[in-house]
Amino acid sequence: MTIADRYRKVRNHSTLLCKDLITEDYSLQASEEVSPPKWHLAHTTWFFEQFILVPYDLEYKVAHPQFNFLFNSYYNAHGARTARNQRGLMTRPSVEEVKAYRDYVDAAMIKLLDKSDSELIDLVILGYNHEQQHQELLLTDLKYNLWFNPLDISVIDIKEYKNTLKGDWLKIDSGIYEIGYEGNGFCFDNELGRHKVYLQDFEIFSSLVTNEEYLEFMEAGGYQNSNYWHDEGWAWVNANHIKAPLYWEKQGQEWTYYTLAGRQNLKPNAPVSHVNFYEASAYAAWRGLRLPTEFEWEIASGQFEWGERWEWTNSAYLPYPGFATAPGALGEYNGKFMINQMVLRGGSVATSEGHSRPTYRNFFHPHYRWQFMGIRLAKTL
Amino acid sequence: MTIADRYRKVRNHSTLLCKDLITEDYSLQASEEVSPPKWHLAHTTWFFEQFILVPYDLEYKVAHPQFNFLFNSYYNAHGARTARNQRGLMTRPSVEEVKAYRDYVDAAMIKLLDKSDSELIDLVILGYNHEQQHQELLLTDLKYNLWFNPLDISVIDIKEYKNTLKGDWLKIDSGIYEIGYEGNGFCFDNELGRHKVYLQDFEIFSSLVTNEEYLEFMEAGGYQNSNYWHDEGWAWVNANHIKAPLYWEKQGQEWTYYTLAGRQNLKPNAPVSHVNFYEASAYAAWRGLRLPTEFEWEIASGQFEWGERWEWTNSAYLPYPGFATAPGALGEYNGKFMINQMVLRGGSVATSEGHSRPTYRNFFHPHYRWQFMGIRLAKTL
Amino acid sequence: MTIADRYRKVRNHSTLLCKDLITEDYSLQASEEVSPPKWHLAHTTWFFEQFILVPYDLEYKVAHPQFNFLFNSYYNAHGARTARNQRGLMTRPSVEEVKAYRDYVDAAMIKLLDKSDSELIDLVILGYNHEQQHQELLLTDLKYNLWFNPLDISVIDIKEYKNTLKGDWLKIDSGIYEIGYEGNGFCFDNELGRHKVYLQDFEIFSSLVTNEEYLEFMEAGGYQNSNYWHDEGWAWVNANHIKAPLYWEKQGQEWTYYTLAGRQNLKPNAPVSHVNFYEASAYAAWRGLRLPTEFEWEIASGQFEWGERWEWTNSAYLPYPGFATAPGALGEYNGKFMINQMVLRGGSVATSEGHSRPTYRNFFHPHYRWQFMGIRLAKTL
Amino acid sequence: MTIADRYRKVRNHSTLLCKDLITEDYSLQASEEVSPPKWHLAHTTWFFEQFILVPYDLEYKVAHPQFNFLFNSYYNAHGARTARNQRGLMTRPSVEEVKAYRDYVDAAMIKLLDKSDSELIDLVILGYNHEQQHQELLLTDLKYNLWFNPLDISVIDIKEYKNTLKGDWLKIDSGIYEIGYEGNGFCFDNELGRHKVYLQDFEIFSSLVTNEEYLEFMEAGGYQNSNYWHDEGWAWVNANHIKAPLYWEKQGQEWTYYTLAGRQNLKPNAPVSHVNFYEASAYAAWRGLRLPTEFEWEIASGQFEWGERWEWTNSAYLPYPGFATAPGALGEYNGKFMINQMVLRGGSVATSEGHSRPTYRNFFHPHYRWQFMGIRLAKTL
Repeated sequence: MTIADRYRKVRNHSTLLCKDLITEDYSLQASEEVSPPKWHLAHTTWFFEQFILVPYDLEYKVAHPQFNFLFNSYYNAHGARTARNQRGLMTRPSVEEVKAYRDYVDAAMIKLLDKSDSELIDLVILGYNHEQQHQELLLTDLKYNLWFNPLDISVIDIKEYKNTLKGDWLKIDSGIYEIGYEGNGFCFDNELGRHKVYLQDFEIFSSLVTNEEYLEFMEAGGYQNSNYWHDEGWAWVNANHIKAPLYWEKQGQEWTYYTLAGRQNLKPNAPVSHVNFYEASAYAAWRGLRLPTEFEWEIASGQFEWGERWEWTNSAYLPYPGFATAPGALGEYNGKFMINQMVLRGGSVATSEGHSRPTYRNFFHPHYRWQFMGIRLAKTL
Repeated sequence: MTIADRYRKVRNHSTLLCKDLITEDYSLQASEEVSPPKWHLAHTTWFFEQFILVPYDLEYKVAHPQFNFLFNSYYNAHGARTARNQRGLMTRPSVEEVKAYRDYVDAAMIKLLDKSDSELIDLVILGYNHEQQHQELLLTDLKYNLWFNPLDISVIDIKEYKNTLKGDWLKIDSGIYEIGYEGNGFCFDNELGRHKVYLQDFEIFSSLVTNEEYLEFMEAGGYQNSNYWHDEGWAWVNANHIKAPLYWEKQGQEWTYYTLAGRQNLKPNAPVSHVNFYEASAYAAWRGLRLPTEFEWEIASGQFEWGERWEWTNSAYLPYPGFATAPGALGEYNGKFMINQMVLRGGSVATSEGHSRPTYRNFFHPHYRWQFMGIRLAKTL
Repeated sequence: MTIADRYRKVRNHSTLLCKDLITEDYSLQASEEVSPPKWHLAHTTWFFEQFILVPYDLEYKVAHPQFNFLFNSYYNAHGARTARNQRGLMTRPSVEEVKAYRDYVDAAMIKLLDKSDSELIDLVILGYNHEQQHQELLLTDLKYNLWFNPLDISVIDIKEYKNTLKGDWLKIDSGIYEIGYEGNGFCFDNELGRHKVYLQDFEIFSSLVTNEEYLEFMEAGGYQNSNYWHDEGWAWVNANHIKAPLYWEKQGQEWTYYTLAGRQNLKPNAPVSHVNFYEASAYAAWRGLRLPTEFEWEIASGQFEWGERWEWTNSAYLPYPGFATAPGALGEYNGKFMINQMVLRGGSVATSEGHSRPTYRNFFHPHYRWQFMGIRLAKTL
Repeated sequence: MTIADRYRKVRNHSTLLCKDLITEDYSLQASEEVSPPKWHLAHTTWFFEQFILVPYDLEYKVAHPQFNFLFNSYYNAHGARTARNQRGLMTRPSVEEVKAYRDYVDAAMIKLLDKSDSELIDLVILGYNHEQQHQELLLTDLKYNLWFNPLDISVIDIKEYKNTLKGDWLKIDSGIYEIGYEGNGFCFDNELGRHKVYLQDFEIFSSLVTNEEYLEFMEAGGYQNSNYWHDEGWAWVNANHIKAPLYWEKQGQEWTYYTLAGRQNLKPNAPVSHVNFYEASAYAAWRGLRLPTEFEWEIASGQFEWGERWEWTNSAYLPYPGFATAPGALGEYNGKFMINQMVLRGGSVATSEGHSRPTYRNFFHPHYRWQFMGIRLAKTL
């Protein structure tokens, strides 16, 4: 595929994800950390406009003088921006106007891609990988936003789980291993600086913890016993009266689970989802086990299937030894978030095709649950 | 006009107010105390459904089993309801569905009104007066919501001021006066219990404080001098870095003011608007004057023009001596708000035609500014 | 008694109230609205120093250059001051040093009082009335602060109730009455501006609501029924899981009540205490009655006994028609608090002897409970 | 020294630290994360009582039935406890009573230590190491608490810096190293599980960043440039208007610094102190360098002097591969805090003699500044 084809494919996928939304849904924002679909569609477009068209296409005219303000996310070097929790208030530009903005930028991009040199190609690839990140967020944010509606809205069936799970312990021997991305494909800056780490002997389980297994923890009083929890996790459980993963609701005797295709009965064999780091750790502690580190996960990942759930690791999100930030606004991509977040590895049913890889480092604050987060267990020998 | 005609007229007016909104605007909610246009349209409809159709029309089927939950506002006796700050998240039912809900209820109401007895007529009149209250809120909430958008959206021109103002002091003699509604027309329960009050000699000014006059207060350092302010007002000024009324913004050397028809240069002769009770009181104190009580206002109101601004009084919102609440959910209409609020008298450019009267008691917390609130001065002799 | 004798008597009473405190207790501050005993002792002294000695005694040297900053309360015109919620952190000056400060100021005051003219006498009288206000707060703040200690500390026995109560309805006829202070004695500025009000016929009960009567309300589900409550009161009940007045605790089958002399079994016949305005109003609503206005209370007060509880009225704290503030910092005494507070009339077991009178206007926000607040009922005929 | 001698020595040191406090100071608590001196004295005593005397001395009678509630800190397995932010409100027991409590427990401990077996000795050693941790907190909490007092209180001179600093880069070669405690002495559970790590080539500076060097960062606009900061650090700077380290205050042209011996002019050559992780990282980024990891620090620590400042590392506080928690309440010592905290290595001028070592892992949330936290720089080659 040409770079233009790849660009088009990713761009179309964003539009496709929204095909069953009604106009009203595009502005939904239930809290600061989730964004409205319209904002995702516009912000990913803004990224191409500001980082490629404006600097590299001398004839390009920005679509609207205020869009840089409206659709910048967090790039301080790019000036002021709409407060993050007010994105849902920007009912103008309309959905139609945002779609026209996408078309306008796409036309300019396709034209530019004909004459493109390699620096530009790298930026385009970064741009559509950025858009793929937002495709996952678009879905998970949407799920969170629609969940507030008591009407149990169904908008898209992303098949929230796929395989029947049945696992085993895999043993990995101690020794020096190489960590980080290697190759000619795309990766983010936080995967670079391939380097050696020493791992002790460990075992990791080949499949994810299931809903059924997690229910055993709940029924054994897992949410009522401080022994299994981090101090902050225990405070979170009590302050929020947590008794189950996000989106779970007991209706009569039956546990149900809200999906983007509406509320369903909980599937016992599906991998548990929408647990935070505290819950994942507490479950592991209850089982007398632990979460893997991100290094253990990366080394072992060739030996098990993954991709349904982003998997919590017990590694904090920190720079690799050779980490360096790019100059300018793009240097703000990853490094400035390397505090108070935990690494997740894998991918999920909401991850765009081809977007993840064994060295991919996702990261979230330990209390968040709205991504498709799951649990894989490990143990020290 | 028949009761059906009056009903229709009010109902149509709500729809008319929204005619230049785009679908996205209908779900806007910037904070807990403002509601989205769609919610106003639905809630006023719900009022007729729940208080008239359900109890009085035995053949009536509710439009949707969840609408009672979605569109109840605060009536505790009517069961659970959507959290007030989550009304904007209810993207479903869609705008179209809410319009269909209005049509469905209107058809049933019109049919019912043929056979209506007087109890029913009273309820219908209460219902459309309730809707008129929401018409004003629909406009003021919308203004507040759209104000967050840096694009200075224009949706409707309600002529935010009308007359050229030029006033005089009017003198009222001390004595016993009668306060409260008298007559055969409609009034709210909080106006009833007509009773005697004794007023001391006082004077009241025949026109409202203008933008130009208020600017003098600002330029004289009014917002920087604690002497003019209530203790809580002073805390509010400092905590929020207040320097001007709501919607004012200095652009270069020029003060501008956001209106529902877009941002405009401030009109010097227009009555000042969007000041809260603290600001109104501080302005009066700076002038060595005071705000009138609601009783002084009511007695003097025949001698001056009013209706552009709701006017802050120095009266707390409290029950009249004979105040009694209606039984059932309708008893929650007014009495339970009679604490920590101040009375406003008059009406505003957003008030629906025929909705106000000299005995009408509006009320808001002293820190609110998003209504068309203005200042009239008085003095004790 | 000479002015010097009266001065000495009030000053000594403050010291006496603290005689069974240990040094540690003097710095206790559990929340922003309560102050430590040491601060009360110092602030009342500061009042004499700053408003009398500094301006009127040319030879006077302030005790310490920082005490004006440390012991000013809210007088904006008197410069910066310690944050209100950090008074308990000022462990220096020590208790001994504060006592020495009192002695130092007292000596200078006594010396000054020999040559005093009438303006000075008025200020001294204001000063010791101010100190008497703080004597009551010293006790009620102390009670609140010590209540957090699970050891049920006993420090002083102020006999939290005195009489056996047994009441009747008293009828007052409609007509014009005079309200406000009249005479040659001392009163606060908020009592001045004696003026006419018109009262409708009403009845008022000659005794206060008792614990036993209030328990009936609790047992009838009063705290679970929104019908009896103001909207904000109902929110307060639910947000704070309120089930009883402040200081009540059920131990086994027995209701107990924390007093400054330790925890005791609840006395059924004692007047209920430590209820806020919402609770007082809800109780009255449950009984089908109402609270009196402050005007009704003042007019009727000659016909019943009062003085055990500050009694909530249904009057907001607002200026009388002729209210005027004094120039300078003393002008901040009352007027700037005339918003969002309700008037209480009467006095309490913690009120210093001779400090209250029928025209005395106490005032608190409707949610506060830590004063000895009680309930008297009224009804419109 | 016998175990009894060591016990006595540590216990006496706690008392010695407080010798110049006045009674009032013992209850000071300015915020939730700092505790009053009296509480430190009592809690460390409670530790011996509950974990040694109660289980091992059958004749022991607890000093007071409520002290377990009052002086437990966070041990969930040990039952309810005083809310952490209310420790300052516990004016009873008095300072004298807490000293008597210390004497009572000490007498019982000394008696018990005669017949002690090795399990008991291990617990006693843990107990006095626990007390030494609280000795440091007693000092740093006290400094924070007294800092609120405008009188610039001086209570103890701990010589907040000692050496003249002059450093060099030290180079460490890549390779496999051993991390964690080894030997027969005491260490905490979080240092155990000695294990291999692979380090890349790096350099580390032999001395700490000085006040003078940090001032250069400030004068170069370090607090105004988002490029140097983590996203959360930048938010912290702006939300709190941070312009300098904690305790710094510019008076005229001179920077001053509050110490436990009073306010002093800032010493240019002293190691900077009271910076949080965000500030330490931003400083390093401004210099084009980075903080060391805790592993780099531990391996290099034999080649430089340390002990004046706890030094921020860029390692999150996580368990070593072989980490295991002890059974029972003592198992809550460390593991449950292993989230959202960063590791500090070294020691400080407030650390009790003999308490730290190269493998010691201290840890705090990245935004805290009230410990004697400093900055050491490193770089990848």
